[in-house]
Amino acid sequence: MNDSVLVIGSVAFDDVETPFGKRRDALGGSAVFFSMAASHFTTTRIVGIAGRDFPEAAITMLKERHIDTRGLEIVDGKTFRWGGVYHKNMNDRDTLYTHLNVFADFKPVIPNQYRQTPYLFLGNIQPSLQLDVLDQVENPKFTALDTMNLWINTTLDDLLKVIAKVDLILINDSELSLLTDEYNLRSGLKKLHQMGPAYIVIKEGEHGAYLSYDSQLFYTPAYPVNQAIDPTGAGDGFAGGFMGYLTTCQEIDFKSMKKALIYGSTLGSYVVEGFSVDGLKQTDRDQIESRYSALRQLVTI
Amino acid sequence: MNDSVLVIGSVAFDDVETPFGKRRDALGGSAVFFSMAASHFTTTRIVGIAGRDFPEAAITMLKERHIDTRGLEIVDGKTFRWGGVYHKNMNDRDTLYTHLNVFADFKPVIPNQYRQTPYLFLGNIQPSLQLDVLDQVENPKFTALDTMNLWINTTLDDLLKVIAKVDLILINDSELSLLTDEYNLRSGLKKLHQMGPAYIVIKEGEHGAYLSYDSQLFYTPAYPVNQAIDPTGAGDGFAGGFMGYLTTCQEIDFKSMKKALIYGSTLGSYVVEGFSVDGLKQTDRDQIESRYSALRQLVTI
Repeated sequence: MNDSVLVIGSVAFDDVETPFGKRRDALGGSAVFFSMAASHFTTTRIVGIAGRDFPEAAITMLKERHIDTRGLEIVDGKTFRWGGVYHKNMNDRDTLYTHLNVFADFKPVIPNQYRQTPYLFLGNIQPSLQLDVLDQVENPKFTALDTMNLWINTTLDDLLKVIAKVDLILINDSELSLLTDEYNLRSGLKKLHQMGPAYIVIKEGEHGAYLSYDSQLFYTPAYPVNQAIDPTGAGDGFAGGFMGYLTTCQEIDFKSMKKALIYGSTLGSYVVEGFSVDGLKQTDRDQIESRYSALRQLVTI
Repeated sequence: MNDSVLVIGSVAFDDVETPFGKRRDALGGSAVFFSMAASHFTTTRIVGIAGRDFPEAAITMLKERHIDTRGLEIVDGKTFRWGGVYHKNMNDRDTLYTHLNVFADFKPVIPNQYRQTPYLFLGNIQPSLQLDVLDQVENPKFTALDTMNLWINTTLDDLLKVIAKVDLILINDSELSLLTDEYNLRSGLKKLHQMGPAYIVIKEGEHGAYLSYDSQLFYTPAYPVNQAIDPTGAGDGFAGGFMGYLTTCQEIDFKSMKKALIYGSTLGSYVVEGFSVDGLKQTDRDQIESRYSALRQLVTI
């Protein structure tokens, strides 16, 4: 059995509209997208919170995929809800509302059985909560972090503390500029490495992603899907594919991280092919391997 | 000696401001950027027009690079001039003015000595002029076309006639959407291939570029430069590197086109490293080969 991975993040309902339709009460949240993607490789342990309205069927669906939900607290109140509308180009979106609900008072507690999880992914939530979780996990083998412009703008001090402690940060190119005040990729990466992480992944959406390590760069294009239905959760699915694959590797080095980047790109592409977690549910390991090969073919002369 | 390539396009003065400085009266225009990039591989024949203010030193500089300027008409009046300001992110720019000047009445005449040029690049000018040129060249071996949103919006009928006649079109992703009314890459490519070209290059700026042929895709990332100074002309430099390399190939097939895409990306990256044609002037074939290898290294596990 591969090493397991722990994810702390949101568990949510999304009300989403894209050029391809509308979906209300869609299962979402960073912890859900991440764990569904990682579940193709290993056992994922969720730490999160949901309200009494969170359906038993969703928990069953997660458990059927060997996702460990013992760290998912169900409390009185409503589950986190996000509503948004994507523009025709699918890159821009308008957030209609963000109702934190039970997430507002979330104090993550890592169950005892989770404390020795070797791989840790700190999903995109308040940096202070990410720090809490880091403190509760005993000597993780590999830690990774996602964040967003909101935390860069509002809680930079806490965020910098987390950044200093992790092995990997995954952000997009505009977040890199915001965080480092650099518009050049190489300059931004140099500054960000100095803040702590040995590894950096720069997500460029439908274009591709960079991996940076020790003055070396690796790039994979995104998989050009036949139809992008809903990009919500693509970044978390990417992270889940990345970390999930990494748990299967004997060595964590630049070479295994390069492959992890391609698996990240692969799982991210399944997310956008359906609403909610539909794309991640419908794929399997054979299809994942075949899409991984297609991504390599895309850059082969 | 390799086969030569003919370019029809603008010859211009640019007044450019970027976050890295200002340059007035900078040598520019699609024919200039293209020929300077292609000159690293073969003889390039320019067809264009300039005014009496066009400096003899610029013509000398082009000639020293084995660029054939017999098709560059010098007439009474002022040379085409473009002025623009780039934003901090270097992707967005505001055009301050476009003075067509002598370009307004340009009627391209292909010199007799040019009529049998095997490779033809129709730079980004009015489609009716591109058609004129196509008619004047005898059985070219390979023809390629650049265009822009202006011609898609204003002279679509003429543009479609040119598109139907060329082997390759190079455009960016937003132009592909505008031209095909598709926001998905694969769907857009399918429609565009049906309009005529066997080969399509989709330029994605600092991210990279796709080559599409016969339901197959190839991708190369852009070279991540240490400092992007001025993106003006990068697309034309890309086309020059692409077509220049192609003239050195025995066979024009998907494999040689893939390599041409990487040379395109390479030459485009030199353009952005300096104002005007500075980056293209300062590089040489050894440096080009070394950057080509770096681009391959970037996608090698």
